[in-house]
Amino acid sequence: MELVAIVIGIALLEYFWFTMRCGSMRGKHDVAAPAMQGNPEFERAFRVQYNTIEQLMIFIPSIVLFGHYLSAPIAAGLGLVFVLGRAMFAIGYWQDPSKRGPGFGLTILSNVVLLLGGIVGAVMSYAG
Amino acid sequence: MELVAIVIGIALLEYFWFTMRCGSMRGKHDVAAPAMQGNPEFERAFRVQYNTIEQLMIFIPSIVLFGHYLSAPIAAGLGLVFVLGRAMFAIGYWQDPSKRGPGFGLTILSNVVLLLGGIVGAVMSYAG
Amino acid sequence: MELVAIVIGIALLEYFWFTMRCGSMRGKHDVAAPAMQGNPEFERAFRVQYNTIEQLMIFIPSIVLFGHYLSAPIAAGLGLVFVLGRAMFAIGYWQDPSKRGPGFGLTILSNVVLLLGGIVGAVMSYAG
Repeated sequence: MELVAIVIGIALLEYFWFTMRCGSMRGKHDVAAPAMQGNPEFERAFRVQYNTIEQLMIFIPSIVLFGHYLSAPIAAGLGLVFVLGRAMFAIGYWQDPSKRGPGFGLTILSNVVLLLGGIVGAVMSYAG
Repeated sequence: MELVAIVIGIALLEYFWFTMRCGSMRGKHDVAAPAMQGNPEFERAFRVQYNTIEQLMIFIPSIVLFGHYLSAPIAAGLGLVFVLGRAMFAIGYWQDPSKRGPGFGLTILSNVVLLLGGIVGAVMSYAG
Repeated sequence: MELVAIVIGIALLEYFWFTMRCGSMRGKHDVAAPAMQGNPEFERAFRVQYNTIEQLMIFIPSIVLFGHYLSAPIAAGLGLVFVLGRAMFAIGYWQDPSKRGPGFGLTILSNVVLLLGGIVGAVMSYAG
């Protein structure tokens, strides 16, 4: 499971990068806390961070279940697809929300495979 | 722990349903990203998803601790109460925010029992 | 790992306190769901809760990795720094957003050490 642990760590470093970007845009455009809007570049950085929270909520438990019950190396590989998809999503969205599609699709694809695979693996382990 | 893993998977599938509903309402009502408001039906779907993130943040670690240190079958049963409560919460809230109470209460109840039980179990294991 | 489990439980109890405060401010100031703004005291309570979600997303996986691959007692100690930082952050922010800095810094410090340490520990375990 070390490979899964390392990929989780990479995904969290990437997410940390998104949080730093959001904080930096808050400062650059003087969006005083607690406001969550007021400048388009800040709002895009905010939504990149929060959409990543939405997806990490599925990703982290699912990669652990998939890695534990099916295959740790395959889970780690799917996790790298997730990390790549998030980078594409963020870099696109920061420029223009209309460019967020492809990276979003990769994220969803890897999350769905990890989640369904993790459930199937746990059911097989319980049944067998 | 397979039962706990399966219930976590079901809770994440349910959450995935809420995220799809939120994205679908964004499209239906033309709420262009990165906006988080602009149409009441979208805003209700958005809050259902985010309130579920708020609760999953407690639920997932707590069901693992309760299942590991106290009882995996009881943890899984409480997890099904959580899943039921979330479905009631979402279906109510999508119609009218005033209908979110009973499902919200079931969610909080299962989360509080899972969290306190998980802490008690870990303390007992440490002490004993 | 019981110490890590107990500290995770304490951090989630603290987060539960922040969620209760946010719900209570929603009621006190009649901010009808699904609104996420409308009163400054509610908005500060809302952001305290959501900033804690942002940080728990890193904290929980990272303390588990650090505790598993490096040292459970040190992970638990860093986790207590996180809990202290969050309390300072919340109590400051509830009064005035400009008072959120020191607690925020403590949170980030503990999270960065836990995350980097967890990755290093997993890489060392994989290599060795």
